[in-house]
Amino acid sequence: MKMTDTVRQILRNYEGENPGVKAKLCSMLMQGKLAGTGKMIILPVDQGFEHGPARTFAPNPAGYDPHYHYQLAIDAGLNAYAAPLGQLEAGADTFAGQIPTILKLNSANSLMSDTAGKNQAITGSVDDALRLGCAAIGFTIYPGSDMALDMFEEIVEMRREAAACGIATVIWSYPRGEAISKSGETAIDIAAYAAQIAALIGAHVIKIKLSTDHLELPEAKKVYEEQSIDIATQAARVRHCMEASFNGRRIVVFSGGAKKGTDSVYDDARAIRDGGGNGSIIGRNSFQRSREDALEMLQNLVDIYLGKA
Amino acid sequence: MKMTDTVRQILRNYEGENPGVKAKLCSMLMQGKLAGTGKMIILPVDQGFEHGPARTFAPNPAGYDPHYHYQLAIDAGLNAYAAPLGQLEAGADTFAGQIPTILKLNSANSLMSDTAGKNQAITGSVDDALRLGCAAIGFTIYPGSDMALDMFEEIVEMRREAAACGIATVIWSYPRGEAISKSGETAIDIAAYAAQIAALIGAHVIKIKLSTDHLELPEAKKVYEEQSIDIATQAARVRHCMEASFNGRRIVVFSGGAKKGTDSVYDDARAIRDGGGNGSIIGRNSFQRSREDALEMLQNLVDIYLGKA
Amino acid sequence: MKMTDTVRQILRNYEGENPGVKAKLCSMLMQGKLAGTGKMIILPVDQGFEHGPARTFAPNPAGYDPHYHYQLAIDAGLNAYAAPLGQLEAGADTFAGQIPTILKLNSANSLMSDTAGKNQAITGSVDDALRLGCAAIGFTIYPGSDMALDMFEEIVEMRREAAACGIATVIWSYPRGEAISKSGETAIDIAAYAAQIAALIGAHVIKIKLSTDHLELPEAKKVYEEQSIDIATQAARVRHCMEASFNGRRIVVFSGGAKKGTDSVYDDARAIRDGGGNGSIIGRNSFQRSREDALEMLQNLVDIYLGKA
Amino acid sequence: MKMTDTVRQILRNYEGENPGVKAKLCSMLMQGKLAGTGKMIILPVDQGFEHGPARTFAPNPAGYDPHYHYQLAIDAGLNAYAAPLGQLEAGADTFAGQIPTILKLNSANSLMSDTAGKNQAITGSVDDALRLGCAAIGFTIYPGSDMALDMFEEIVEMRREAAACGIATVIWSYPRGEAISKSGETAIDIAAYAAQIAALIGAHVIKIKLSTDHLELPEAKKVYEEQSIDIATQAARVRHCMEASFNGRRIVVFSGGAKKGTDSVYDDARAIRDGGGNGSIIGRNSFQRSREDALEMLQNLVDIYLGKA
Amino acid sequence: MKMTDTVRQILRNYEGENPGVKAKLCSMLMQGKLAGTGKMIILPVDQGFEHGPARTFAPNPAGYDPHYHYQLAIDAGLNAYAAPLGQLEAGADTFAGQIPTILKLNSANSLMSDTAGKNQAITGSVDDALRLGCAAIGFTIYPGSDMALDMFEEIVEMRREAAACGIATVIWSYPRGEAISKSGETAIDIAAYAAQIAALIGAHVIKIKLSTDHLELPEAKKVYEEQSIDIATQAARVRHCMEASFNGRRIVVFSGGAKKGTDSVYDDARAIRDGGGNGSIIGRNSFQRSREDALEMLQNLVDIYLGKA
Repeated sequence: MKMTDTVRQILRNYEGENPGVKAKLCSMLMQGKLAGTGKMIILPVDQGFEHGPARTFAPNPAGYDPHYHYQLAIDAGLNAYAAPLGQLEAGADTFAGQIPTILKLNSANSLMSDTAGKNQAITGSVDDALRLGCAAIGFTIYPGSDMALDMFEEIVEMRREAAACGIATVIWSYPRGEAISKSGETAIDIAAYAAQIAALIGAHVIKIKLSTDHLELPEAKKVYEEQSIDIATQAARVRHCMEASFNGRRIVVFSGGAKKGTDSVYDDARAIRDGGGNGSIIGRNSFQRSREDALEMLQNLVDIYLGKA
Repeated sequence: MKMTDTVRQILRNYEGENPGVKAKLCSMLMQGKLAGTGKMIILPVDQGFEHGPARTFAPNPAGYDPHYHYQLAIDAGLNAYAAPLGQLEAGADTFAGQIPTILKLNSANSLMSDTAGKNQAITGSVDDALRLGCAAIGFTIYPGSDMALDMFEEIVEMRREAAACGIATVIWSYPRGEAISKSGETAIDIAAYAAQIAALIGAHVIKIKLSTDHLELPEAKKVYEEQSIDIATQAARVRHCMEASFNGRRIVVFSGGAKKGTDSVYDDARAIRDGGGNGSIIGRNSFQRSREDALEMLQNLVDIYLGKA
Repeated sequence: MKMTDTVRQILRNYEGENPGVKAKLCSMLMQGKLAGTGKMIILPVDQGFEHGPARTFAPNPAGYDPHYHYQLAIDAGLNAYAAPLGQLEAGADTFAGQIPTILKLNSANSLMSDTAGKNQAITGSVDDALRLGCAAIGFTIYPGSDMALDMFEEIVEMRREAAACGIATVIWSYPRGEAISKSGETAIDIAAYAAQIAALIGAHVIKIKLSTDHLELPEAKKVYEEQSIDIATQAARVRHCMEASFNGRRIVVFSGGAKKGTDSVYDDARAIRDGGGNGSIIGRNSFQRSREDALEMLQNLVDIYLGKA
Repeated sequence: MKMTDTVRQILRNYEGENPGVKAKLCSMLMQGKLAGTGKMIILPVDQGFEHGPARTFAPNPAGYDPHYHYQLAIDAGLNAYAAPLGQLEAGADTFAGQIPTILKLNSANSLMSDTAGKNQAITGSVDDALRLGCAAIGFTIYPGSDMALDMFEEIVEMRREAAACGIATVIWSYPRGEAISKSGETAIDIAAYAAQIAALIGAHVIKIKLSTDHLELPEAKKVYEEQSIDIATQAARVRHCMEASFNGRRIVVFSGGAKKGTDSVYDDARAIRDGGGNGSIIGRNSFQRSREDALEMLQNLVDIYLGKA
Repeated sequence: MKMTDTVRQILRNYEGENPGVKAKLCSMLMQGKLAGTGKMIILPVDQGFEHGPARTFAPNPAGYDPHYHYQLAIDAGLNAYAAPLGQLEAGADTFAGQIPTILKLNSANSLMSDTAGKNQAITGSVDDALRLGCAAIGFTIYPGSDMALDMFEEIVEMRREAAACGIATVIWSYPRGEAISKSGETAIDIAAYAAQIAALIGAHVIKIKLSTDHLELPEAKKVYEEQSIDIATQAARVRHCMEASFNGRRIVVFSGGAKKGTDSVYDDARAIRDGGGNGSIIGRNSFQRSREDALEMLQNLVDIYLGKA
């Protein structure tokens, strides 16, 4: 399939990057029902690691089988499927070449004491990504954690290694930790800051959460008020986060969190679209529904990003 | 001996893996009295490290000699023998080629203060496993420990190195540490979670403990109750752990703990069998009995797995 | 453009260095409106990392776009442009060869708790600097921090690697941390010490802050008083810092801090010039003004360094 | 000199080992007055590091000179001489080929605060051992210390490197640290455990202290009493430690500690001999006596091991 | 210049060492006014790092310029000049081949909080020493610090690397830290211990401080008294430190500390000479005087070591 001008324009923004990485970004942008539009929907399945298997898959037990998610992403016409090592490996041969995959290289879990700090374990490598034919590596950073500097350094090194092999890098930039309050984790100033950091350390695709109009840092609050930065609506906040991502020179996708009603999911997508974001990364809201419901909901999301809904 | 269809089907689940690793998994699955059935009994002897020599071997002093265990595993027709470096080396030449061996790469000991944290020392390497002709490396992780992320990262790296050399990886996934209560160590939600983590970080064979119907994590408890997950019997709990192991796409063996009566050992095995587990890993219950008693008990276990008892 | 005698004399001071590094220093000294004078003005844009995007760019939103800063530095006839990895990459191709760039290899951020310590994350590498065609690497050290020894060791190693590839090293020597009071961070004894440390660990270009006449360390205070060291004026303090930089054998540029009135900026520059310093590194005072105002102000700074204002 | 059957039988126990390592073990077993008997006396001189030079050498100042100890070991007909890097180097050329040497790779010192933890510095390498023509490397572990896991990992790695070069490994297994009481350091259950750990992590020669009949660990105490393990005499305790050393498949030498009367030294040696131990490692009791006295005492020890005294 | 018998005898003590290292030791011993005598005077200039530039150079501002010290060492006919990386580099070309240089590889600074611990930063490498044509590397260890084990390990590794390239190693052994009182830092038992440690970890040249007759460690005190070790005079203490340095098989030079009257400097030198020490390492007492005074004082020191004063 021939690259569209929209995609060509997006790739042009990765000025420092080699053709190999651009080809991988292209493969994700030219995949599925949103191919060529510059919009993306990604299916991530790492919640079994983060929350445990029962909390993740019991609502729709078909999801215990790693094959289920590959098939769902393919049948729904999504752009990419992201998961940790074992999860990807369990279907790597059956579904080879049918959908771009993102190897999630680090993961948290719910079996850690508070004193252990906010951090994730590195559970995969660039070599694994190459061996499994992945389009990208995925990595979570926790801006605000006392471990943040280490996490930045880890992904910077793995990104370099990956790019040298023609593999793209997706950074999950999730504020969390000692320096941030609970409501600060989704504050708009923090969200924009998280996007900026991901861009600065070299993310090709940035994944952040949708935010609230809360302002966490006093020094930032002052500036938002003095400069009358528009953060009143979700669309406005998405737009501000795009500014913070090199004024839109980087692909940014937004996640919606725990399972909720479809109307709420659709509202999120419209805000992302209207604010100029590149799309959704949507896990529990996909696979914790029945396959039938999930396919219907994902089709509606596609229609929203196509401007039809 | 020709591979059976049952074994072929099991190996097919390791989609990302190379023929070398599959050959080693095959060598264990096609060994001994359970050859070809997809069931396994493994003899592990690392308790001298974990509890000291007298507590481990004094009940049956013949066990002080490393040769004893090789011979026991061979004569009982088991699938594999697992031990730390020195223990394996002490019989590596005499018993070469007679039974697949698993080099246990890390070990805890009972001479550590509480402040030292829950961790194990790495006491062997993939090079050692190659040099000694081992079929697999073994590694313990402690989900729930403040050292867990480090342990995950260690085995992920060694697994990668081992697989590249055609050596399989067995992960002992033993919940323990700051984030877990004593009864939580054997809670079913934690056991399933431990199996899931081992699968996600790339275990070819997962070793977990049999569990109780206790539910440790409040958020998990809610889901188990809402979704009415069946955890009433040991067999049901084994079945749930198999679900958590990629819906049975990974080999899972269960351990029984300290020495106890044979009836109890047999009950465990029947539950493992009925729940769809792949078998037992049974140390102290084997070698702390006299050789004669152990051989009889192990024969009975074989019969249980063969469906004859 | 032919090297001037002034520049030749400066380069002669780098006795241990190879021609590759000297060529890069030359490229910066022979660039822009101050070419050949031995004076420099550098534009640094890493405040988005340090303070977040809104605090940094909202006063002049054009700055959200990384291209803006390249263009500003070129149009103002500056000597070099310094920024972190992502920021440089976003314009690396468009502006290749038009202005020497300095890849800032480490960065702090405002999302760190007090217990996390004073440190920065390494977010780039010498390989990145080579790949992006940079003239130099930049690195911040925090003399006075409990992490200072680590930071010294990091840049010493990266400097060695960079120099071996013919890339120069700029060290931001910013006193900060457990051993220093707030007013000590800009005390003259500390500033001179910071310059000395940067010189001793191998900086080719030293960046320090302008200082006050406060004396922080009791043992140093005694010496300043006994020896009647002149620290009464900003120019005298600049002169003292040049002494501490191998008696002027190293290039030293001074930064002015947060945005302030242009008169104050000009006063600083005159003091730097009169004290024998090599120039200014001026970020927020450049890009937080409108492009028009910034260009006017930078022209006036050039005139000051040319002795015309 | 032709290898005796006794030595051949001992070497046969190192089943996993290459001929290079066996040759080095052979060189020590076939050296001096006990050559071929399977018994050994080793002279270790690392106390200058551990206690300082005056406490170590002032009682017999000839010992300040490193040549003294080489000559003593040679003239007394001992099996090997063990010392840290500088100490060995100072006579390496003069005495080359005259006695097998053991390069002690780590050392403690008496200038450490309690908060620094129980640990040793690594002060030599396998490359040094090769360069100096050593028969073995020596390494101390502290089972019971919070640093024990690190120490295990260090020697495991160095042992692997050494064995690959045909150099044997001697492990000093000295219980010490946060998990052990003062009397526990010489308790028999701990001594046997220390021997077991050394064997499991791959020691070719194990060095432990003679023990008391104290039992430190409650769980172990129970087993010793239930199983009526004989620990009443020193010989019985030596025998038990040999059991814990793979039932005698590993060479074990015993140390006697600070300087004491010769009768006591002889009693120790008879207990080691009668319990089936392989010999003595005897430092301060050798070199803190005059050369004449030391030679006489060492001859008597030889006679004891030969069964003549 | 032909090597003297005295020097040949000294070099013979380095039995484990290669000709490259011996040649470098020879180059220092055969340099300047003490050439061939086995005595040495070394000029060290790392106090700018340790105490800051003003405290170090303001008393004689000519010293701000790194060239000053090269020239002073050459004109005074000293044996070697030691300084950190930047300081050496700043004159490396101008003075190449005129005097042996020692690259000081680690340095402390006065901007560290108490909680940061007693340690130094590594600010140079063996590669730097090679590139700059140095005769030796210099490294400080702090016996008594909680960081001491790390420091020992660092220099052991760098010494090995340096020796393999034919570069000698000078160890500054300076007791300091949590395990030692202030007066203990110069106690004779500690000084001798510090010399012994430096010798054991492989120093070719040992640098220690002159000591007092204070005895710090109770266990050592007992031995000094029992054995009546002569520590009454500075010369006796120097002699004892030479004993602790392999009975004189290692070169030992002594430092005198902060600036003081010349008589006191001469007394120190006579004690070093009379106690059998190899010479002085003398920094602040040299360069904090006017050049004229320094040259006169250094000539007098030469005369003392030549036995003429």
